[in-house]
Amino acid sequence: MPTQEEMKAALRAYVDGFANGDAESVIALFAEDAVVEDPVGSPELHGLEAIGKFYRDAVDSGARLTLDGPVRGSQGSGAAMAFTIELAALNLTIKAIDVFTFNDAGKITTMRAYWGPDDMSQG
Amino acid sequence: MPTQEEMKAALRAYVDGFANGDAESVIALFAEDAVVEDPVGSPELHGLEAIGKFYRDAVDSGARLTLDGPVRGSQGSGAAMAFTIELAALNLTIKAIDVFTFNDAGKITTMRAYWGPDDMSQG
Repeated sequence: MPTQEEMKAALRAYVDGFANGDAESVIALFAEDAVVEDPVGSPELHGLEAIGKFYRDAVDSGARLTLDGPVRGSQGSGAAMAFTIELAALNLTIKAIDVFTFNDAGKITTMRAYWGPDDMSQG
Repeated sequence: MPTQEEMKAALRAYVDGFANGDAESVIALFAEDAVVEDPVGSPELHGLEAIGKFYRDAVDSGARLTLDGPVRGSQGSGAAMAFTIELAALNLTIKAIDVFTFNDAGKITTMRAYWGPDDMSQG
């Protein structure tokens, strides 16, 4: 099981990857067979090829993430964070909570994002 | 599928139930066969009898919840919220994120709480 600090460092690196426009550093956090569901209720992405495309598009969009509080751990291999996404090019703000599971190597195996139409606003 | 507003109203009622010391109003939000994992990585509670005892104890402890930002929805039947738990009697503060799934009747079917030892602090 990854340590709490390993998981929290990975999620801070995830936020930093967006800040630095560095999609590859975000993608490198994921396991080969990872699953991404963003947002919850939309079709899942399976594996690094699909997940890589997703994050390259997301980082290219200029999205910037600001944590709404500290990253949370758990008593197991899960962690979560609440944050605000700013998409300046679209004048759009999204309030989201992302929930992650990690494998023993400290790689992300699942990411599920909670945000819906009502969590988006202009400005 | 419940509406986004139904899920968000339920989660605000969850927070209010703690504020009002009203465990029964919190328990009434759950489906008969609901599952609670608090925190993630600890044994799951199955069904209203176990979940009822859990929330009666939690509310009796005097826990107060303050949202760290708006409740988040999804594109499906999931919602999440980040909040701070204050346990004045123990001089303890916990930063948590709870993730919920709802059934078609708008009742909570799963609640999984993300917080670990590192997310607790004195004061």
